[in-house]
Amino acid sequence: MLDRIPAKQDIIEAHERIKRQVHHTPVLTSSSINKIADCKIYFKCENFQKVGAFKFRGASNAVLSLNKNDLQKGVATHSSGNHAAALSLAAKMKNIPAYIVMPRTAPEIKKRAVENYGAQITFCEPTLKSREETLAKIVDETGAAFIHPYDNYSIIAGQATCGKEVLEELHNLDFIVAPVGGGGLLSGTCLSAKYFSPQTKVIGAEPQGADDAFRSLRDGVIHPSVNPKTICDGLLTQLSERTFNIIRNHADEIITVDEGSIISAMKMIWERMKIIIEPSSAVTLAAILKNKEKFSGKKVGLILSGGNVDLENLPWKE
Amino acid sequence: MLDRIPAKQDIIEAHERIKRQVHHTPVLTSSSINKIADCKIYFKCENFQKVGAFKFRGASNAVLSLNKNDLQKGVATHSSGNHAAALSLAAKMKNIPAYIVMPRTAPEIKKRAVENYGAQITFCEPTLKSREETLAKIVDETGAAFIHPYDNYSIIAGQATCGKEVLEELHNLDFIVAPVGGGGLLSGTCLSAKYFSPQTKVIGAEPQGADDAFRSLRDGVIHPSVNPKTICDGLLTQLSERTFNIIRNHADEIITVDEGSIISAMKMIWERMKIIIEPSSAVTLAAILKNKEKFSGKKVGLILSGGNVDLENLPWKE
Repeated sequence: MLDRIPAKQDIIEAHERIKRQVHHTPVLTSSSINKIADCKIYFKCENFQKVGAFKFRGASNAVLSLNKNDLQKGVATHSSGNHAAALSLAAKMKNIPAYIVMPRTAPEIKKRAVENYGAQITFCEPTLKSREETLAKIVDETGAAFIHPYDNYSIIAGQATCGKEVLEELHNLDFIVAPVGGGGLLSGTCLSAKYFSPQTKVIGAEPQGADDAFRSLRDGVIHPSVNPKTICDGLLTQLSERTFNIIRNHADEIITVDEGSIISAMKMIWERMKIIIEPSSAVTLAAILKNKEKFSGKKVGLILSGGNVDLENLPWKE
Repeated sequence: MLDRIPAKQDIIEAHERIKRQVHHTPVLTSSSINKIADCKIYFKCENFQKVGAFKFRGASNAVLSLNKNDLQKGVATHSSGNHAAALSLAAKMKNIPAYIVMPRTAPEIKKRAVENYGAQITFCEPTLKSREETLAKIVDETGAAFIHPYDNYSIIAGQATCGKEVLEELHNLDFIVAPVGGGGLLSGTCLSAKYFSPQTKVIGAEPQGADDAFRSLRDGVIHPSVNPKTICDGLLTQLSERTFNIIRNHADEIITVDEGSIISAMKMIWERMKIIIEPSSAVTLAAILKNKEKFSGKKVGLILSGGNVDLENLPWKE
């Protein structure tokens, strides 16, 4: 596992390491959305990634970076979201155990997804304290490696491969925009821009109802994410030391957007591009549409982070 | 305009004619659906086509096949669906008028789509008689060419380019499956298989609640589509002389499927492939899943005909 801020070579090696098991996702464009946004947007489709989210890149890199001895003991994390599924699949592909701690209140659909990837689930109370204690116990008993969803340099290097693919495929991007929750994707994108396309500015996009990253950058300290209110279920977490330090040094700006514009951006992508993205991905297009002057006439890479939505419960349903 | 069953050269020429304005759509695969279906399915994504449906191929070929004199007078049709939008856009790209007759009861969203493409809409009563009379009057007054949505060899040759792309990209397909409503897409697919991959069997897929094509082939006469009951709004029409003759000579079989399996096939594609398809496209996967022995271990091309759905009103909503 990586114990320093990923260098250029670390990201290149991460990409080599995960290439065989991770999809090189396509970049799509939409002439009608370009017309509405008055710029050229290149949509990097991590909704088509395995497990339906970019998280599989980081999880793969973390698992494949373990040494032989640690590998056998397996990996563990607490999460009910895309990271849990991603880590479970990455472990399964390496034929090692994955221990996932989940609040017993997690939606059935998420429990089943993780189960289907063959992970061993331990349920806990829906509090951070119970999660951490339960996880500590499992790590203690099994010797499994705790893979934090984003406060981990191997995870960050893995997520960075997404931006690397975009920046290698498209030259001279003016901007690259990624959503920010815990900051794993955004910090990785910052590093890839720095190493592979230094003239490209990196923008984070965040829901107003969970704007702790925006406030953290403004104030120079990590603000906790207290009682976040947003449909973006992937963006409820707060920055960590590792992601905060990279983002504060390399991101250009964090743009916050309201829930209504997130929902309409999501619907716009579904309707016009005929692809399914989750709310956490739509925050990026909403950020562009809110700042038309900034992006007018520019070439903009945009990371669609995932496509896992509950089709029975869409946000535009009356 | 073509006045005979399209020959191989006619389809090659149609493809050349429309290439610059029609998307060469991607072919996607899904390892999880392959596992469920126990065969290798190649999804041809016409949901990503302009106007969101394969119909733009036929409409483009029809418009671009008009002679200079006829072109100026424009094109006309009666339709409230994808053909109306496709013909309107094809006319707009050639800078000629499009006259669309629509029942005044058509959904607002479809009216707006056609208007946005710059067509002139004339509303009529929601009966076939009123549609045909209103259209005849417009054709009489304007001299516009009536472009039938499928009983037209230039349309059929245009739709055939979709199957041609699949069969040129993928060699040795055992089957190619397409939905059947009026039969424009299926008859075109039959011709492309005959000319470009004669060993590939062509299967039509049809809702049980609108199984007029199935019965027509069984009985050797065109049965009308009387009071069809299906969520597949693109498959309500009946075969015409032109499409029936091609399909009866060249299609291998028509498989009918119930509404429940159409809805679950549609949801399976949305959830696992993260792409949006309309119900009329899902009938094909439903047909494969219903006949597992037939398709087991085979290579199957499948045409996802379109992606225009009302996101406010999805079929799995309680």
